[in-house]
Amino acid sequence: MSTKNTAILLISCPDRKGLVAAIANFLYRHNANILHADQHQDAELGVFLMRVEWDLQDFDLSLEDFETAFLPIAQEFNMTWRLAHSSHRPRMAIFVSRYDHCLADLLYRYRAGELNCDIPIIISNHPDTHALAETYRIPFQHIAIHKDGKEEAETTQLAILRRLHIDFIVLARYMQVLSGEFIRHYPNRIINIHHSFLPAFHGAKPYHRAFERGVKLIGATSHYVTEVLDDGPIIEQDVTRVSHRDDLDDLVRRGADLEKIVLSRAVRLHIEHRVLLYANKTVVFD
Amino acid sequence: MSTKNTAILLISCPDRKGLVAAIANFLYRHNANILHADQHQDAELGVFLMRVEWDLQDFDLSLEDFETAFLPIAQEFNMTWRLAHSSHRPRMAIFVSRYDHCLADLLYRYRAGELNCDIPIIISNHPDTHALAETYRIPFQHIAIHKDGKEEAETTQLAILRRLHIDFIVLARYMQVLSGEFIRHYPNRIINIHHSFLPAFHGAKPYHRAFERGVKLIGATSHYVTEVLDDGPIIEQDVTRVSHRDDLDDLVRRGADLEKIVLSRAVRLHIEHRVLLYANKTVVFD
Amino acid sequence: MSTKNTAILLISCPDRKGLVAAIANFLYRHNANILHADQHQDAELGVFLMRVEWDLQDFDLSLEDFETAFLPIAQEFNMTWRLAHSSHRPRMAIFVSRYDHCLADLLYRYRAGELNCDIPIIISNHPDTHALAETYRIPFQHIAIHKDGKEEAETTQLAILRRLHIDFIVLARYMQVLSGEFIRHYPNRIINIHHSFLPAFHGAKPYHRAFERGVKLIGATSHYVTEVLDDGPIIEQDVTRVSHRDDLDDLVRRGADLEKIVLSRAVRLHIEHRVLLYANKTVVFD
Amino acid sequence: MSTKNTAILLISCPDRKGLVAAIANFLYRHNANILHADQHQDAELGVFLMRVEWDLQDFDLSLEDFETAFLPIAQEFNMTWRLAHSSHRPRMAIFVSRYDHCLADLLYRYRAGELNCDIPIIISNHPDTHALAETYRIPFQHIAIHKDGKEEAETTQLAILRRLHIDFIVLARYMQVLSGEFIRHYPNRIINIHHSFLPAFHGAKPYHRAFERGVKLIGATSHYVTEVLDDGPIIEQDVTRVSHRDDLDDLVRRGADLEKIVLSRAVRLHIEHRVLLYANKTVVFD
Repeated sequence: MSTKNTAILLISCPDRKGLVAAIANFLYRHNANILHADQHQDAELGVFLMRVEWDLQDFDLSLEDFETAFLPIAQEFNMTWRLAHSSHRPRMAIFVSRYDHCLADLLYRYRAGELNCDIPIIISNHPDTHALAETYRIPFQHIAIHKDGKEEAETTQLAILRRLHIDFIVLARYMQVLSGEFIRHYPNRIINIHHSFLPAFHGAKPYHRAFERGVKLIGATSHYVTEVLDDGPIIEQDVTRVSHRDDLDDLVRRGADLEKIVLSRAVRLHIEHRVLLYANKTVVFD
Repeated sequence: MSTKNTAILLISCPDRKGLVAAIANFLYRHNANILHADQHQDAELGVFLMRVEWDLQDFDLSLEDFETAFLPIAQEFNMTWRLAHSSHRPRMAIFVSRYDHCLADLLYRYRAGELNCDIPIIISNHPDTHALAETYRIPFQHIAIHKDGKEEAETTQLAILRRLHIDFIVLARYMQVLSGEFIRHYPNRIINIHHSFLPAFHGAKPYHRAFERGVKLIGATSHYVTEVLDDGPIIEQDVTRVSHRDDLDDLVRRGADLEKIVLSRAVRLHIEHRVLLYANKTVVFD
Repeated sequence: MSTKNTAILLISCPDRKGLVAAIANFLYRHNANILHADQHQDAELGVFLMRVEWDLQDFDLSLEDFETAFLPIAQEFNMTWRLAHSSHRPRMAIFVSRYDHCLADLLYRYRAGELNCDIPIIISNHPDTHALAETYRIPFQHIAIHKDGKEEAETTQLAILRRLHIDFIVLARYMQVLSGEFIRHYPNRIINIHHSFLPAFHGAKPYHRAFERGVKLIGATSHYVTEVLDDGPIIEQDVTRVSHRDDLDDLVRRGADLEKIVLSRAVRLHIEHRVLLYANKTVVFD
Repeated sequence: MSTKNTAILLISCPDRKGLVAAIANFLYRHNANILHADQHQDAELGVFLMRVEWDLQDFDLSLEDFETAFLPIAQEFNMTWRLAHSSHRPRMAIFVSRYDHCLADLLYRYRAGELNCDIPIIISNHPDTHALAETYRIPFQHIAIHKDGKEEAETTQLAILRRLHIDFIVLARYMQVLSGEFIRHYPNRIINIHHSFLPAFHGAKPYHRAFERGVKLIGATSHYVTEVLDDGPIIEQDVTRVSHRDDLDDLVRRGADLEKIVLSRAVRLHIEHRVLLYANKTVVFD
């Protein structure tokens, strides 16, 4: 994965005739060898979204010159756009509390080369996962959250994130609610895993409530964090079947497997620039 | 299925030592050939639930004498119990509005011999499904629900149900909310299909809200109707994957397939006496 | 669905730079309002596949003139291509034997407007489904297959199909193996439902063999028919969980629900021109 | 989990009237507080299978005396039976080759307390996973398999297993085929994970063959190892959806997640004595 040398262009704009032709011509003119192209049109909202990935081998524009060259088209079609380079490894911070299954899963995948990112820091409000971080030689920072001390803690967290040039944050079962102030620093760049099939059981203790409600399936949801709790754009969800034979502990255990899978899929989709946003929803070009 | 000649005993009581021995001894003493036995114990609530089915071939008690013979055990262990006979076909009324996919599915399965019940009546607040009912030669009654006329309509409905000795009611996408008064006539004997993965999107227009929320899976839930809307014990649920490529019509269409499957499974489980209730939940002995 | 007025262009060719630009420019030049565009590139085999659908409202080429206008591009890029019109309803023949669940499901969906096709004929080697066909007012032809009489029967079948200008054939649990000679008349235009998760349990009696093998999931597979039995390109598959509590009859019953869903999805994908073929596989642009 | 103090009785015998009564009476007589009881009857083969678990708190028989006390019943009903104690941790050896995802997953779950067993040894034909074993402080033994040296290697492996009193073996993507001679030492006590939905793609390179066949779902299967390759009783299976957008690497990556889940579920079911065998199939009392 890390050996790919490709560029990825993400575009979002009002839908208009000639859009695809303009983009395709531009890429062809500069000798791009297109590897993948996905587009989505929302007829109702008149929105056009595109992800196109091409080999940089024969491409005759340097990535530095891309913006200047592409600007006329971007302006003509009123595009919101961004260019990514597959060889750039984004910098991911992981926030965690006591449950370590999602953290352990992410770290295993990181070491196995499945996640094309760097992990400069793990931040936790508990010291429990320090040893796990050390096993993988990832710096670990314990920042306790004292009563009435969340603001202070967040200030410390933000300073660390800034210093380490963090691109995005993964909440791997981090049991603290982030402030709106914090979230505004990383808009659509904080990925959470919620241990239910959202919007069912948003908020606290979803497994307890699922157990009490007697649902026949439990779920997990990974979403971008917005200022409304558990309401951000959903990246990935999955469920598994349960029955009366499963007690609350079984739900927690089976749910943990879901959480790992769903969160790691979402992180991977984010890293590979496969997630676009509009209308508080995601378009996932997998 | 209709040729089976078995008895099914359903028991619910406080959990106590000696329960299973008492039941097993009783059945053995009367020469029952047990075909299936399932039990569930809820350790936290101290509840014991059992379903046992045996061949009536060699059984030496008539079903009429069963109650007298079993009474001492039932009293000793403080059981709530009921005996069913596989050859008895329960009488099911179907309520429907305009969407006919669940109705058509139930009728097809009924004719194919998959549902071991009689269907003495289909009741609808619209005339649209009359022709479908006729195809299957099921009596159809159109009872319009006028503004401020629900009470009157329910009185008419209840009279029909009583006259036809209806055992249970299936709401096959019946778009009216039944009154508490109505529901109290058929406690845990009204089965609804809700077009979402409850408790997500309870209430009106679940597909619209699922579409707006951008969920990655849509669901359907079949449950017993209680006086709290969409809150009764869940019998069966299922989900299917959707993506940004699915528009609202796709959700409705794909959801319809789920609704059919989930409702027919729930109806079948109910008919075969596989559903027990406690704590607003179901135990499904499938 | 039938009210849409769109054109669909399906392209398959060697992958080359400039392909997308050429197609997009052509469509833009003729004022096409693109509604959906999907493409797939197989890097290993160097194959490019595309499905593009546009509104005909503003399109300035008649479909009659399309070929002439598009020919230079098609030749330059060595394309295999075909143009479809959403208002054209393809003509589907259904072959069936005794099991009628897939037939009943297709007919229900047909009447509900879910399948944008005509059904000029149902052909069966048994008379059992005649009444069902009549309910939906579809012509029914019983063609018995006598010992050593398959060739003769196929001759009769082919004459009917030709006379009725049938576009494609659906084998809705048709329990006869078609001859290579027959299949060559409808290459990649015969859709079968096989009652297993292919390639497991290809051939006869898959549920019996699944039961004996003790699998924990059973499946259904819809595929195009080729001259090698159960080996054609797979269009759609799905599975459902089973356990030791399910006997053979349960497998058959639960499998029937899968078969209906999987076959109807495949038929719908075919009708909507969403299936492209290469290397004995399908690309499904859903 | 390790704090439970329960006994588990597993019974398999010809089905006969009075069986359940005899067992229930025996347990009641000795004051057992039954926590879970599951039974299965195969009507066709006349087989009865049961798993019953009870609290040892009030039980008045020591486990040493159980056999003597239970023998008359066992003989009367011709039972094959075995008694397990929840506080006994079975001793599991893990065999692995180069792919370490299943090993890493099992070790994580072991440390998290999810698997109630001891792991006295990891044996590999490659040195690659030595570091991983060390992280979890599990002894690691590299036993290379030279050309024509499998017999010798197996002799060494068997000596180690014997010396360490290994109860059962897990093949966590161990890429060597075990000899019949080896397997006979651990009948139904070797658990394998095969990276396909068996019986599809048994044998070598299942992902390659799944990719070539163009299946729409890939699977994983955990089964007991018998002398016929990939043909032993299936404990657990699962699948995940794939599409033309997934290349071979995607299949391998997505399949790895399935393999982990399916293998760990099977291992857990085995450790908790939830798997019974008959007719080359499993009954899983989950």
